[in-house]
Amino acid sequence: MGDVRVLEVKRSVFAENDRRADALRAELKARGTFLLNLMSSPGSGKTTTLAATFKALRGRLAMAVMEADIDSDVDARAMDALGVPAIQLHTGGMCHLDADMTAQGLEGLEALATPDTPIDLAILENVGNLVCPAEFDTGASANAMILSVPEGDDKALKYPLMFEVSDVVLINKIDVLPYFDFDLECCRERILMRNPKATIFPICAKTGEGIEPWADWLVDAVRAWQS
Amino acid sequence: MGDVRVLEVKRSVFAENDRRADALRAELKARGTFLLNLMSSPGSGKTTTLAATFKALRGRLAMAVMEADIDSDVDARAMDALGVPAIQLHTGGMCHLDADMTAQGLEGLEALATPDTPIDLAILENVGNLVCPAEFDTGASANAMILSVPEGDDKALKYPLMFEVSDVVLINKIDVLPYFDFDLECCRERILMRNPKATIFPICAKTGEGIEPWADWLVDAVRAWQS
Repeated sequence: MGDVRVLEVKRSVFAENDRRADALRAELKARGTFLLNLMSSPGSGKTTTLAATFKALRGRLAMAVMEADIDSDVDARAMDALGVPAIQLHTGGMCHLDADMTAQGLEGLEALATPDTPIDLAILENVGNLVCPAEFDTGASANAMILSVPEGDDKALKYPLMFEVSDVVLINKIDVLPYFDFDLECCRERILMRNPKATIFPICAKTGEGIEPWADWLVDAVRAWQS
Repeated sequence: MGDVRVLEVKRSVFAENDRRADALRAELKARGTFLLNLMSSPGSGKTTTLAATFKALRGRLAMAVMEADIDSDVDARAMDALGVPAIQLHTGGMCHLDADMTAQGLEGLEALATPDTPIDLAILENVGNLVCPAEFDTGASANAMILSVPEGDDKALKYPLMFEVSDVVLINKIDVLPYFDFDLECCRERILMRNPKATIFPICAKTGEGIEPWADWLVDAVRAWQS
């Protein structure tokens, strides 16, 4: 009863996107720019996590951010206020970003950068959605996702692909662990069941707790990408 | 820079779906079954809200539930344990339900019902996603969405269509209001800006707080549908 037809057009869209993503990744590698694709549910704290990450990395990496949003620019303005070069990508109702949209965004970011300050780390804040963004390779050097405590420790069971494609899982809002039925150990096991190679960082973006190890992971990843 | 191409195929998919949805709605009206499409982000408490709703409505309406999930059956099993006729719809990675999938699910539910206990209220628990499900008419008599306090009071700014298409917005997890920067009045204003006709119920599904007015709303809606 639950079998569902899949539009055949999807296959060709994915193949085309994969080619575009690989080309973009090669271009970024040549330029020495590490692109991080950051995904999560709505309201799990992507923008707050970015703000904390930028504070931790200030002076260590030259950064810029692309904020994808369906219809507002509050996130780009928040980044701008922190002194981070930021552009807003309006998706016009689309539920994800693909490699082509990402390439357009990167062109916009390059226009903000100066020749003597190339971008080490570009972060793409994807649309808040645990389903569709996981299906589209954006051309990123790595994928990270945020799972926040109030969402529950069972999300890896329910949104398998998102956890499979994420190199890093940030478990955010650990400050409210006492008020939710959330078993951190059980959550960790479920994530690793989907993706044994996932690196997991419990954090609280609001207070900055746990941000240092995540920032160090980024510095190492960027340096490895540039070498 | 943020302008994004839209696959032209989408338009015909929507038109075909709208026709199918209208036909399903007429069929349900003739049968006296009210179909509620329940949407939200991952982890906002759809299943817990359904459980509380069923408890409040027991003996007043004959109910059944369809649980859409990408790849698990934990939700249908939870409903089954409460004595609610339930089926699980596996979407196989799809990010939303359309009218055709919903019709398939309803056939499955009808097979569970007996001739002397027709279904007054069928609830479709949609895929956890604030974007795509809003675009597809499922054939429902009404749409409801859940916004949970930890997601933030700005969600109506960021996911406009979801709020525009929802007849009811349940603001869930109000028990944790003291631990989050969430302004209930401001949230209400933003919802009504998107949809002045929205009916808003602040609830705590876990404790049952606020569930009664929502259950009463459902009883009235079902009776109006059947008359």
